[in-house]
Amino acid sequence: MTYCVALNLKHGLIFASDTRTNAGVDHIASFKKMTCFQNEGERNIFILTSGNLATSQAVIERLQQDIHGQMEKTVLNVPTLFDVADLIGVLSCQIAKQAAKVAQQEVVTFGSNFLVGGQIRGQAPKLYSVYSEGNCIAATEDTPFFQIGESKYGKPILDRVVTYETELAVALKAVLLSFDSSIRSNLSVGFPIDLMVYQVDSLRMPHGRRIHADDEYMLQICQEWGSGLVRLLMDFDDIPLDYTQ
Amino acid sequence: MTYCVALNLKHGLIFASDTRTNAGVDHIASFKKMTCFQNEGERNIFILTSGNLATSQAVIERLQQDIHGQMEKTVLNVPTLFDVADLIGVLSCQIAKQAAKVAQQEVVTFGSNFLVGGQIRGQAPKLYSVYSEGNCIAATEDTPFFQIGESKYGKPILDRVVTYETELAVALKAVLLSFDSSIRSNLSVGFPIDLMVYQVDSLRMPHGRRIHADDEYMLQICQEWGSGLVRLLMDFDDIPLDYTQ
Repeated sequence: MTYCVALNLKHGLIFASDTRTNAGVDHIASFKKMTCFQNEGERNIFILTSGNLATSQAVIERLQQDIHGQMEKTVLNVPTLFDVADLIGVLSCQIAKQAAKVAQQEVVTFGSNFLVGGQIRGQAPKLYSVYSEGNCIAATEDTPFFQIGESKYGKPILDRVVTYETELAVALKAVLLSFDSSIRSNLSVGFPIDLMVYQVDSLRMPHGRRIHADDEYMLQICQEWGSGLVRLLMDFDDIPLDYTQ
Repeated sequence: MTYCVALNLKHGLIFASDTRTNAGVDHIASFKKMTCFQNEGERNIFILTSGNLATSQAVIERLQQDIHGQMEKTVLNVPTLFDVADLIGVLSCQIAKQAAKVAQQEVVTFGSNFLVGGQIRGQAPKLYSVYSEGNCIAATEDTPFFQIGESKYGKPILDRVVTYETELAVALKAVLLSFDSSIRSNLSVGFPIDLMVYQVDSLRMPHGRRIHADDEYMLQICQEWGSGLVRLLMDFDDIPLDYTQ
């Protein structure tokens, strides 16, 4: 499995992905699932992937080759972020179908999902979730984040904390705790976590950060979070239920 | 779907279940998934069910009929809670197999899961998770709670807050928030929630409580929880990541 989250908020975009891939519990490996493309000062694009790793990697490889080969349409020259998402969707669908044909298996086995976001100069930042069927949906102010992969454990914290208006620093902490929830509960999600925070209109590639299992900051907020939750719960009034009977 | 949780803690047992059943989004209904059996002062048994509703109901019906029919082995006379769990597992498996045979379909379609717990005088309280295959596992001090149904959204809060030593009042709040997380994220889990809290060695049937969507206490703790989480996050140091670049 995999766990990736991307947020399109008022003040910027956040991208985060784990690095675990698995085919059964005895076949676990680490792969980076975040790729960045940029034209300094003109566009910054971030891609997160889940699903069939061969398909995901082939899509990224093809996007890069198309740039080097100066093809007519590449992620660095199509007019909008929607066109970038569309490019990825079409490519991913083609590659999965081809693989299914070769293997004579169901195409669903080879499907990948992508979160694609960023900003092109003069345009608003955008975030798309690209389905394995090739089409995509855009994040909105009502639904400002998308998850792909093993998303259930990490969704409640985001649902409760994150709105379009949330400050990047606060949303980022919620994202880290969302990863912590997923990693605790599911072996198929694992450290390190790749993080990227893009500020609206900066049009510069952010520094980003890789967070390992022994990261001091991560350990500290997870511990403080756990004890903070218990304190919060203890402060609430008890439910008026006569359970001492 | 369904969401049920049961905890076997130092000071007592907690049982909670939602009431939604669905076969597609246009076929939703309310059914109580909690059943209690007692021999006043001798044994208190609580059963939560998920999975195929026809199988779950048939099992409960049979357990009740066996008591009224004064059968040799019933949940009210077998020597241990393990025997109760075993009785339910065998019955559930028989009923699912029979249904599959009649319908000429896979037995897995008719499977049900059960959480069975309680206390028999002179014995420690016990909690079992009964698989649709008929066998069961017992909760321990290391793993003091079980979930069945749509369990992922509601697991992180329990993982972070609940240990064997946790006070019942605190664990109960965590359970309610676990339900809130599941209900917010998944349409197949819904109010009202049935709650039962049994104190160790009381050997009396607790009052229990049914919590509806407009329950004042529930609304209050969910709201306080949301704002409390945001406060907690804001109090943490920001991650040392130069995302303003």
